[in-house]
Amino acid sequence: MKFCSACGASVTLQIPDGDNRERFVCVTCEAIHYQNPRVIAGCLPVWEDRVLLCLRDIDPRSGFWTLPAGFHENGETTAQGAARETSEEANARVDNLELYTVFSLPHISQIYMFYRADLADLDFSAGHETQDVALFEERDVPWDQLAFPVITRTLEQFFADRQSRDFKVVYEEIEFRRRRS
Amino acid sequence: MKFCSACGASVTLQIPDGDNRERFVCVTCEAIHYQNPRVIAGCLPVWEDRVLLCLRDIDPRSGFWTLPAGFHENGETTAQGAARETSEEANARVDNLELYTVFSLPHISQIYMFYRADLADLDFSAGHETQDVALFEERDVPWDQLAFPVITRTLEQFFADRQSRDFKVVYEEIEFRRRRS
Repeated sequence: MKFCSACGASVTLQIPDGDNRERFVCVTCEAIHYQNPRVIAGCLPVWEDRVLLCLRDIDPRSGFWTLPAGFHENGETTAQGAARETSEEANARVDNLELYTVFSLPHISQIYMFYRADLADLDFSAGHETQDVALFEERDVPWDQLAFPVITRTLEQFFADRQSRDFKVVYEEIEFRRRRS
Repeated sequence: MKFCSACGASVTLQIPDGDNRERFVCVTCEAIHYQNPRVIAGCLPVWEDRVLLCLRDIDPRSGFWTLPAGFHENGETTAQGAARETSEEANARVDNLELYTVFSLPHISQIYMFYRADLADLDFSAGHETQDVALFEERDVPWDQLAFPVITRTLEQFFADRQSRDFKVVYEEIEFRRRRS
């Protein structure tokens, strides 16, 4: 950020009065521009004993399998965002969404929220950011070709919880240290 | 938003290629400026049979009681944000944070995440956005002087769950319709 989005003047990094961390502050109109973590909402669509995965066709991690998920948008509920992303990426409809896994990733200032959901029917297909969509039984999940740790953890948790049919909501923090240069 | 934060030129509202909703797009450098929901992280600090509440000293809802909570910041986990806000607003320390209530408020594009937590000691006091801090038994909670519906729902849920000692994570959507002008 170099310019004020309200008046177009330059911004500087400074700690505003009453605050305790640096913000971008406009040198002219004094607007404070806060930057906050973003939420990624997604679904774990289930059909009988199989789960739906999408083969990514965009970076990062193009060519790896993921659960349908994307940035939560203004004006929608988080569950609506999860269902919307499932529609956009897999052309699939889901019902009975239940919050299931919540991951906090401070190194990239993101929160992931996945909902368990019933896949409504078998009429699905690849959306425009997706190469392929398929249903997988546990033994067929491509564990070494999953796109992100949050996908692996959500699937592991699901197959473990399915034994007991007790699907508690899981909150986990995933931190990566920066590599030394 | 009127100006591009990257180059200072004007922005216009338009639907970028491959997108399906209007964004602020720079007329010069073509940067797309996304705006997404923000997360408010907070704690429900518990000491024996009492819960800690803060009397707000800032708008909105100055003079009403709240749980310590505030905007989740970049670079911290959501639980760290909840503990930080508890420190800033109530000068209190908390342990054993467990995700408890998650609220999606699409009309204001916010998500609230409250953690149940053990209050570590009785050394607490009002922070600079707070008039007073106090512990309340269930029968003494000022139900008609609580600041926000998410506070009321979290406290109701806690006192109900305390009977069974089964504190499942709750996800709820709270939508308000705009009043007709």
